[in-house]
Amino acid sequence: MDNLVHPSNEEHIDRNMIKVEVNLDDISGEVLGYVMDLLFDAGANDVFYTPIYMKKNRPGILLQLLCSLEKLAEIEKVLFIETTTLGVRYYPVTVHRLERRFRYVETEWGTVKVKEGILQGQIVQRAPEYEECKKIAVHHQVPLKRVYEQVWRNGEVRE
Amino acid sequence: MDNLVHPSNEEHIDRNMIKVEVNLDDISGEVLGYVMDLLFDAGANDVFYTPIYMKKNRPGILLQLLCSLEKLAEIEKVLFIETTTLGVRYYPVTVHRLERRFRYVETEWGTVKVKEGILQGQIVQRAPEYEECKKIAVHHQVPLKRVYEQVWRNGEVRE
Amino acid sequence: MDNLVHPSNEEHIDRNMIKVEVNLDDISGEVLGYVMDLLFDAGANDVFYTPIYMKKNRPGILLQLLCSLEKLAEIEKVLFIETTTLGVRYYPVTVHRLERRFRYVETEWGTVKVKEGILQGQIVQRAPEYEECKKIAVHHQVPLKRVYEQVWRNGEVRE
Amino acid sequence: MDNLVHPSNEEHIDRNMIKVEVNLDDISGEVLGYVMDLLFDAGANDVFYTPIYMKKNRPGILLQLLCSLEKLAEIEKVLFIETTTLGVRYYPVTVHRLERRFRYVETEWGTVKVKEGILQGQIVQRAPEYEECKKIAVHHQVPLKRVYEQVWRNGEVRE
Amino acid sequence: MDNLVHPSNEEHIDRNMIKVEVNLDDISGEVLGYVMDLLFDAGANDVFYTPIYMKKNRPGILLQLLCSLEKLAEIEKVLFIETTTLGVRYYPVTVHRLERRFRYVETEWGTVKVKEGILQGQIVQRAPEYEECKKIAVHHQVPLKRVYEQVWRNGEVRE
Amino acid sequence: MDNLVHPSNEEHIDRNMIKVEVNLDDISGEVLGYVMDLLFDAGANDVFYTPIYMKKNRPGILLQLLCSLEKLAEIEKVLFIETTTLGVRYYPVTVHRLERRFRYVETEWGTVKVKEGILQGQIVQRAPEYEECKKIAVHHQVPLKRVYEQVWRNGEVRE
Repeated sequence: MDNLVHPSNEEHIDRNMIKVEVNLDDISGEVLGYVMDLLFDAGANDVFYTPIYMKKNRPGILLQLLCSLEKLAEIEKVLFIETTTLGVRYYPVTVHRLERRFRYVETEWGTVKVKEGILQGQIVQRAPEYEECKKIAVHHQVPLKRVYEQVWRNGEVRE
Repeated sequence: MDNLVHPSNEEHIDRNMIKVEVNLDDISGEVLGYVMDLLFDAGANDVFYTPIYMKKNRPGILLQLLCSLEKLAEIEKVLFIETTTLGVRYYPVTVHRLERRFRYVETEWGTVKVKEGILQGQIVQRAPEYEECKKIAVHHQVPLKRVYEQVWRNGEVRE
Repeated sequence: MDNLVHPSNEEHIDRNMIKVEVNLDDISGEVLGYVMDLLFDAGANDVFYTPIYMKKNRPGILLQLLCSLEKLAEIEKVLFIETTTLGVRYYPVTVHRLERRFRYVETEWGTVKVKEGILQGQIVQRAPEYEECKKIAVHHQVPLKRVYEQVWRNGEVRE
Repeated sequence: MDNLVHPSNEEHIDRNMIKVEVNLDDISGEVLGYVMDLLFDAGANDVFYTPIYMKKNRPGILLQLLCSLEKLAEIEKVLFIETTTLGVRYYPVTVHRLERRFRYVETEWGTVKVKEGILQGQIVQRAPEYEECKKIAVHHQVPLKRVYEQVWRNGEVRE
Repeated sequence: MDNLVHPSNEEHIDRNMIKVEVNLDDISGEVLGYVMDLLFDAGANDVFYTPIYMKKNRPGILLQLLCSLEKLAEIEKVLFIETTTLGVRYYPVTVHRLERRFRYVETEWGTVKVKEGILQGQIVQRAPEYEECKKIAVHHQVPLKRVYEQVWRNGEVRE
Repeated sequence: MDNLVHPSNEEHIDRNMIKVEVNLDDISGEVLGYVMDLLFDAGANDVFYTPIYMKKNRPGILLQLLCSLEKLAEIEKVLFIETTTLGVRYYPVTVHRLERRFRYVETEWGTVKVKEGILQGQIVQRAPEYEECKKIAVHHQVPLKRVYEQVWRNGEVRE
């Protein structure tokens, strides 16, 4: 019913990552929506915004992103050129990543890829790929939550 | 020790208030800090911002304010002229306000006004006036929380 | 495998509900955690907090709750006595509620109640009862997400 | 340099709008990102999410949307079928909308549409169309903020 | 009136702590409420959630926690088994903790423990224990804020 | 039209900065508004608040600030004396700052200072000084956004 694909993507500790942060109070949300895409394109592993309270009653945004050290120069260029900041700060973080594997699960609307996370040899995560479930939901006019439910039901793994 | 001042400000139900709302995703926090002051100047009873998630990955702000119906035209003028919105929405709200009274409490640094809230004749709120406590804290170089504590201690009401 | 229980809880439009709101900037989170429970005890259907930006650089909380009109007096009493507010505002809301039904689904750890929501005769929601799943997770030392997954898998409804 | 296009879209008061709200604590952000698009497709004028604090230590989401009364049935269908809610609430809001007009402004990279908002005959808003500015920024590899700046510079209106 | 108990809990700098972080966009608030308790049980000193804006319009949660280095393996196990993440990140933090001491203060409803914080020999913090104040408030049917007020009043320390 | 002033403020990497953090759930927003000012006075480069979800259903605040290592003792003193925390945590961050330069731009209401940010010799930021624009807006009764627009228009740099 479902077949093992990617054998490895080994569990590992990555000591080469940094978190980059910028506080912003003089930019619009419109531009920030655009900047997020550019930062992913420049090689960020993740980008996210937090609402913050800044001086002079200003609702601001804390932009945070994760990237490997070798992407830093490229990422900073985007931040300085596209946002309004005059400074960027960063600090190293250690990342512990699970082994990742993919399985393929059948549903009544076609096959869906499921990403598994493995901790010391034990499957602890199973996540249907969002983009594939979404495509089915849109194409077959079914609620997205029904697609997920069927993947969970049909993708049972006997451990 | 403390003396009754303002006799009334009766408890009442106000059916003449409205809540006004605007969603903003193309304005900076810097301008929003400024706009808040203008809205209070134009007669708003309260103004507050909430972080919201808008389309296209935009971190936006929901501006909300409370004002009486007769202030609406003035308030809308500020919103249209100073923010970037093309529309303003509003709806009536009923406000139940407590009777308010002031007392004066002695501290080692001087007298502090305390606002009391009275529900059906019973004192349910006592709040030292922030601006007066702040002035003492700054002038006498004492922690603000110590000023509040002493007001509570000395302002005891025998009920 | 699963049996129908509660026959009705008919789908309906409720025009008797109000939303109550209070802005708070002079109370601690510690007290707000406590107040939430008291408001549910006083008959609120739902209570929730939103972070807001208030004047003078204050991070505040917007307390919102839903209740039926006949609970208003009791709810206001809690708000005035337990929080620091001098005013409470409210406005009517119309609530459209689905028909609700319960089913019982078997898992390897025992039976779990599932709440269903029915829109014009069609089942559109199925939610395993959190408290029952939690009890199983704690008692059998299994991840909560595995309990949910098994309920979804075993609780399939042939429509 | 810039030419008047759409003559009207008159300033008006719309008394036919409602705000619809749902509290959600048992759905993932992944699904909510998807649902926002469906709600716009179903005719919502605006859709936005606010982070809320719900009972039992749950970080939840308040989904809010604006739509005209005639869209309500369609919108509710999406909410009930795609989210996990068992109830939807709503209340009428009055919307004051400015007159809207479009102008076209030349930049070194081509023409950009600018939306103007007019309050009692006076231009109070000018907003370059985001999608057009973004297309230029991506195509010509210029910072988005430079595109906006040039539109403002070249689009000056002699009043 | 109040008696010194715990003599020490010395002021110190702890260089053995780490902050652990996870970004989550495919888990419900319901599960997150449950996970917080498990993380405290596994030895976290503090656990807290922040609302974040993630890619594809997803409202997500940044889970942060503080723990000592020796608890990391246990904490990570909870994160990987109970949440949906495929990776966990962390970095060292230095913690400066005040000396802590307890006093006991009498109120009309019984004794309440007060935690004091001492910076270089000077008392800078006094916090009535929440759980004890809550117990009194519930048992004696008095507002929680009145219990705190009386503790502050009766617990005055002559410095 | 606009003249170069401050020649340098060179672009540089600062390895002497720290981020300081405190979680707060037993303090009011009123006090936090006051504390922000004190922290800037004590030498913080930036101070900002984030809403967080803490244990026992408490809406709390994460206070974050940036300062140089030599300011730490002074900053900690403010945190311990003015807030309610019993512990402060911190970690080093690296800051990359742009070269900063000021220009002066003429508007119909007077001269406005514009801060420029320069990355490897290229101007990437231009920000009109908020306090000067605000003064003009208030004094000449013009919308703040119009002041900014005119600065951008008149401050064009031929690159």
